[in-house]
Amino acid sequence: MERIDRRSAEQLRHYTIHRHFQKYPAGSVLIEMGNTKVICAATVEDRVPFFLKGTGEGWVTAEYSLLPSATGVRTQREAVRGKQSGRTQEIERLIGRSLRSVVDTKAIGERTIMIDCDVIQADGGTRTASITGAFVALVEACSTFYEKGNIFPVKDFVSAISVGISHENEPILDLCYEEDSQAIVDMNVVMTGDGRFVEVQGTGEGRPFSHEEMVELLRLGEKGCRELISYQKDILGGQLVWLVGREG
Amino acid sequence: MERIDRRSAEQLRHYTIHRHFQKYPAGSVLIEMGNTKVICAATVEDRVPFFLKGTGEGWVTAEYSLLPSATGVRTQREAVRGKQSGRTQEIERLIGRSLRSVVDTKAIGERTIMIDCDVIQADGGTRTASITGAFVALVEACSTFYEKGNIFPVKDFVSAISVGISHENEPILDLCYEEDSQAIVDMNVVMTGDGRFVEVQGTGEGRPFSHEEMVELLRLGEKGCRELISYQKDILGGQLVWLVGREG
Amino acid sequence: MERIDRRSAEQLRHYTIHRHFQKYPAGSVLIEMGNTKVICAATVEDRVPFFLKGTGEGWVTAEYSLLPSATGVRTQREAVRGKQSGRTQEIERLIGRSLRSVVDTKAIGERTIMIDCDVIQADGGTRTASITGAFVALVEACSTFYEKGNIFPVKDFVSAISVGISHENEPILDLCYEEDSQAIVDMNVVMTGDGRFVEVQGTGEGRPFSHEEMVELLRLGEKGCRELISYQKDILGGQLVWLVGREG
Amino acid sequence: MERIDRRSAEQLRHYTIHRHFQKYPAGSVLIEMGNTKVICAATVEDRVPFFLKGTGEGWVTAEYSLLPSATGVRTQREAVRGKQSGRTQEIERLIGRSLRSVVDTKAIGERTIMIDCDVIQADGGTRTASITGAFVALVEACSTFYEKGNIFPVKDFVSAISVGISHENEPILDLCYEEDSQAIVDMNVVMTGDGRFVEVQGTGEGRPFSHEEMVELLRLGEKGCRELISYQKDILGGQLVWLVGREG
Amino acid sequence: MERIDRRSAEQLRHYTIHRHFQKYPAGSVLIEMGNTKVICAATVEDRVPFFLKGTGEGWVTAEYSLLPSATGVRTQREAVRGKQSGRTQEIERLIGRSLRSVVDTKAIGERTIMIDCDVIQADGGTRTASITGAFVALVEACSTFYEKGNIFPVKDFVSAISVGISHENEPILDLCYEEDSQAIVDMNVVMTGDGRFVEVQGTGEGRPFSHEEMVELLRLGEKGCRELISYQKDILGGQLVWLVGREG
Amino acid sequence: MERIDRRSAEQLRHYTIHRHFQKYPAGSVLIEMGNTKVICAATVEDRVPFFLKGTGEGWVTAEYSLLPSATGVRTQREAVRGKQSGRTQEIERLIGRSLRSVVDTKAIGERTIMIDCDVIQADGGTRTASITGAFVALVEACSTFYEKGNIFPVKDFVSAISVGISHENEPILDLCYEEDSQAIVDMNVVMTGDGRFVEVQGTGEGRPFSHEEMVELLRLGEKGCRELISYQKDILGGQLVWLVGREG
Repeated sequence: MERIDRRSAEQLRHYTIHRHFQKYPAGSVLIEMGNTKVICAATVEDRVPFFLKGTGEGWVTAEYSLLPSATGVRTQREAVRGKQSGRTQEIERLIGRSLRSVVDTKAIGERTIMIDCDVIQADGGTRTASITGAFVALVEACSTFYEKGNIFPVKDFVSAISVGISHENEPILDLCYEEDSQAIVDMNVVMTGDGRFVEVQGTGEGRPFSHEEMVELLRLGEKGCRELISYQKDILGGQLVWLVGREG
Repeated sequence: MERIDRRSAEQLRHYTIHRHFQKYPAGSVLIEMGNTKVICAATVEDRVPFFLKGTGEGWVTAEYSLLPSATGVRTQREAVRGKQSGRTQEIERLIGRSLRSVVDTKAIGERTIMIDCDVIQADGGTRTASITGAFVALVEACSTFYEKGNIFPVKDFVSAISVGISHENEPILDLCYEEDSQAIVDMNVVMTGDGRFVEVQGTGEGRPFSHEEMVELLRLGEKGCRELISYQKDILGGQLVWLVGREG
Repeated sequence: MERIDRRSAEQLRHYTIHRHFQKYPAGSVLIEMGNTKVICAATVEDRVPFFLKGTGEGWVTAEYSLLPSATGVRTQREAVRGKQSGRTQEIERLIGRSLRSVVDTKAIGERTIMIDCDVIQADGGTRTASITGAFVALVEACSTFYEKGNIFPVKDFVSAISVGISHENEPILDLCYEEDSQAIVDMNVVMTGDGRFVEVQGTGEGRPFSHEEMVELLRLGEKGCRELISYQKDILGGQLVWLVGREG
Repeated sequence: MERIDRRSAEQLRHYTIHRHFQKYPAGSVLIEMGNTKVICAATVEDRVPFFLKGTGEGWVTAEYSLLPSATGVRTQREAVRGKQSGRTQEIERLIGRSLRSVVDTKAIGERTIMIDCDVIQADGGTRTASITGAFVALVEACSTFYEKGNIFPVKDFVSAISVGISHENEPILDLCYEEDSQAIVDMNVVMTGDGRFVEVQGTGEGRPFSHEEMVELLRLGEKGCRELISYQKDILGGQLVWLVGREG
Repeated sequence: MERIDRRSAEQLRHYTIHRHFQKYPAGSVLIEMGNTKVICAATVEDRVPFFLKGTGEGWVTAEYSLLPSATGVRTQREAVRGKQSGRTQEIERLIGRSLRSVVDTKAIGERTIMIDCDVIQADGGTRTASITGAFVALVEACSTFYEKGNIFPVKDFVSAISVGISHENEPILDLCYEEDSQAIVDMNVVMTGDGRFVEVQGTGEGRPFSHEEMVELLRLGEKGCRELISYQKDILGGQLVWLVGREG
Repeated sequence: MERIDRRSAEQLRHYTIHRHFQKYPAGSVLIEMGNTKVICAATVEDRVPFFLKGTGEGWVTAEYSLLPSATGVRTQREAVRGKQSGRTQEIERLIGRSLRSVVDTKAIGERTIMIDCDVIQADGGTRTASITGAFVALVEACSTFYEKGNIFPVKDFVSAISVGISHENEPILDLCYEEDSQAIVDMNVVMTGDGRFVEVQGTGEGRPFSHEEMVELLRLGEKGCRELISYQKDILGGQLVWLVGREG
């Protein structure tokens, strides 16, 4: 089998994470996975949602948006429509849950870390790229208020990737938009540094899928996530990698 | 291990589906799973979304809502807030996708089948109960316009159930609200009559989960879905069961 | 004259009130008036609107909604439209005013009683059925926090019914949907246990109506309300009936 | 009994209707009832609502708004809040129904007459003043497209007034704001030129009201409406009065 | 050149300001510039926006609206559309900035002065008429809480006028709607009593404009503003004029 | 005088325009003016607004948005607030008018060119940078459908810059955020290739400004716009520059 962009079935697209992308946020990266490009920013705010006031605990939450010009056919601006779509909110909830799964909210203190994922160019896998990139921005942001001797708020690494079964019935890793739109099965896998799952969301778009296919897709997803976590470590560098999981 | 309501780990709650629950819609059932009660109605409309006009194809879509009085603490009415929550839209998209996975949209003709899932009482598992009940209403509705000799629009059975890992680290089937709010891992499984998956959505709420746990949860989910499909057949009766999957 | 459903002009439809219909709210009934079915729930909340804070007084307010599947032609969900219709708000204001007319807000204390009227099936007279049913849920709810020796917050009974002048120019009681849509004059009457009016809202849909017709319609409305209050007493039972109007 | 402004119980406030108040609309008046001042404009548009397209019939609909500066305490602008209140919509529906009760929608042809009632100063009775004034603007507007020999779209006169039972238990006519806010019973009466009712909306604000009180309030309302219709005739002048009720 | 209404190029339309136009607000005028008529009201509220709480400073802000019946073709009500248009908000911001430029917010104390400009009839120049009229209402309102010996919150006069280049390439003052809709260049000038500019907003509608044209338009605008300030003084009368600019 | 970033009073910040920034839109640039960075994209759509249907004419319109992470203090996402702010709409109207001033809408044919200006980083002058960058994207987009021998839809160059009077009373060119927030007078100037003005918007933030200051600011603005137009020509290159103003 040859894929659209000549990759093998188990190969990720070319990826880079560009750190310190913006001037103002505490953490900010540009992640590229092939033609998919997402700005992930992490802002630290000295307030928490109502249900956490006075508990000493913090919060991590995410927002996601597509630039109208990011897609093949221009996407209507949600601020003009007057509301976020269901798809947008579903993605925001997924990003938030994924990051919180490796965060010690007590160690954040009464702060909210706002994650903004703004897609500059969309060619499939924007939600998983958002998670992978946002993790790096999150570590950057936590390092700005971390004081030595304390627990570092980020306990483990987390990355995400899409897998699927192609229209030619082959399991493939990291689908681009064209592959995704033809795929029979589509799955997003979010994994931590210790090789366990945070989220598995599989959908049979064209037909249901068997237990065996499920297991094969999980294997592919694990492979992709592991490679991305390894890259996150390269990009963060020894000093920040050393902080992740610090217990004091 | 003994569960809150004395069930075994692999046991479903008491369930019933009450057919012809409302007077006006083409299909209408009340499904009860323990204390969870959902009215599922299917209305046939002679119009299709914009992107299907003139194609001869139909559509199935779903809406979901909680009565304010359905929950332990009263839920604010979404019509008063002025918009549906992200959670509501995520559930609506799941129900719609699950039903469409067993529907031949060409066989519907240029019609839309609106599925309304209105939760009268919520004690965990409302989205999976909605799918299981809505399937029965969908078959009822399709039978109202089906003409002998044609393909019946519903190709296979579909049911759904929640599974999870309890706070005592045990895999359990069909979580009630109290179990769900304490669960470490929470998963929804949607399965067809031929034993394949339509959707698998697993989330590590308390901690990530391993490959082995994933496999065990899938097994439990399959068991629950199979039992519910068997009950759907009892409830629909031979004449309607015979229609499902008819190819002319 | 024979009516659509063979009733006489002055006869109510078959009615029932089913108490303790839901598990969670302090009060909850299902009221049926012919094919019209409404769930009326009363929830007690330990907060009051802004203008009552610190006064020691409480509040009663109502919300009303139709399930989309409740009507002959499916009704669009207001949460999807993003706002409540004028009709919905008008009905909510009527239900709230009617109940408050028999409530001693001081005796409630700084609590809000939220009345939710959710119409499961609509065949005319949903607003009046809501008032009649909500009254029972309200008494149930007040009894949950009432302490002996105090004033009971509900001072008198209240019920409601529709009357009208049919397209055959006959005054009729308790119109079903088909009668209502053809009626020349349509009137809602809300009455207390002592036989006085709380609300009278009459509209000449087809033509104006004379002073004599007005008086005749009032007489019919009184008859209907009286019968319903008598039934409310049966349903509530001696113990709760004894509380209504208690002054300590 | 002496009223706040020295009127007798059965006396209207000083009233005037100023015709041709604005330059652009087909009909436009300023009505004053004491300190209550409302601009009522009628615009003719060559389109009808969806449900009337192709029927040859027309429509009359009304919108109502308070200038923020019209009330003792400034009222928040509904365009800023982003929606109309329930009260506003209830009033708009009342004005629309009242005017349509004297209109032959077939004689309008496929046109919509938009009635705009904008309250410049509010001192009680704004909805009834709106109806009384809007009637004059409506006749003006219909005369702009009326062609001799046809049926004139306005079949009869219509006016409206508020009545009530004061806090001193006296039935009174045409309540100003201060009287209205203290009234025990509040009623709006809309009457046609032939002395029949279009709308009767009575509410027991402070206590329920008896059958006898109801009858007395109707009598007062009729008296007020009759006087206002007589004034409408003066203001319209012979030529326009002659048109009302013309059948060709 | 002769203008539509026979004015000379440098002549204002007939203008009047009618003081004490409404009963309730602290300041209220009706300003007429030809057929353009605007009610400008100033309400004093004992609260300030969030960012001024506890500073002892006050605020002046403005809202603007067109009655639907104010324009040649009826304008849709913004409360019905559910939001203010961009044009409305742009005008509100302009009015607010213009008035604040002559206000000492410290001298207001912790109060907000709400300016409501409601256009009764629109024939061009509604935003500039709003500023000119609102200034008078603002002075009236400030005089209601001003205590002798203090700084008066209004430091100088301010007025506004439109200028433009006509479709016949002539610079003209105070454009009516018809002139405005054909103008090649359109400019609004806001000027203070000492002859300096607060706002200059020029737009080349039909073509760009040269430096020389810009200078000529500024000259015309100054002329118009000066005449209006002179009239504001006449209308306010000696006692209030004396207050403007008082420093104790 | 030395400015914050050591520029002279009449010096622009370092600027670049990066062409072909995104993959999908017909035109797309990244413009940087100092730390201000804006993505300007131009999409060609085969539809026109309602008022142009069937006229053969096209339209140019603009949307503007700040990424939440673009500003020193995070900006709330407008899609979450549910509406665009007044400031956003005012900027969108300015960008649209400025571009249309150099566009021959007939030469566009029945197409809409959507301009999206998304600010990645905001350090003052985002609206003027948007105009200057959007012009280049617009030319790129028009060249994609332009056919030789026709009129090219873009008739002249257009650029924009901010000028102001600093808190030290000096006229300065191209204000960064810190300068802007302290400026006494703030002005935006939009100019065409032939040296004429399209828009001049000056506001006295701290105090009114004199005729002489106005003239000096216009001179500075002209200087800045000229330099940017010269750079637009460099960036577009001979082939595209040659098209601008082509008449066939």
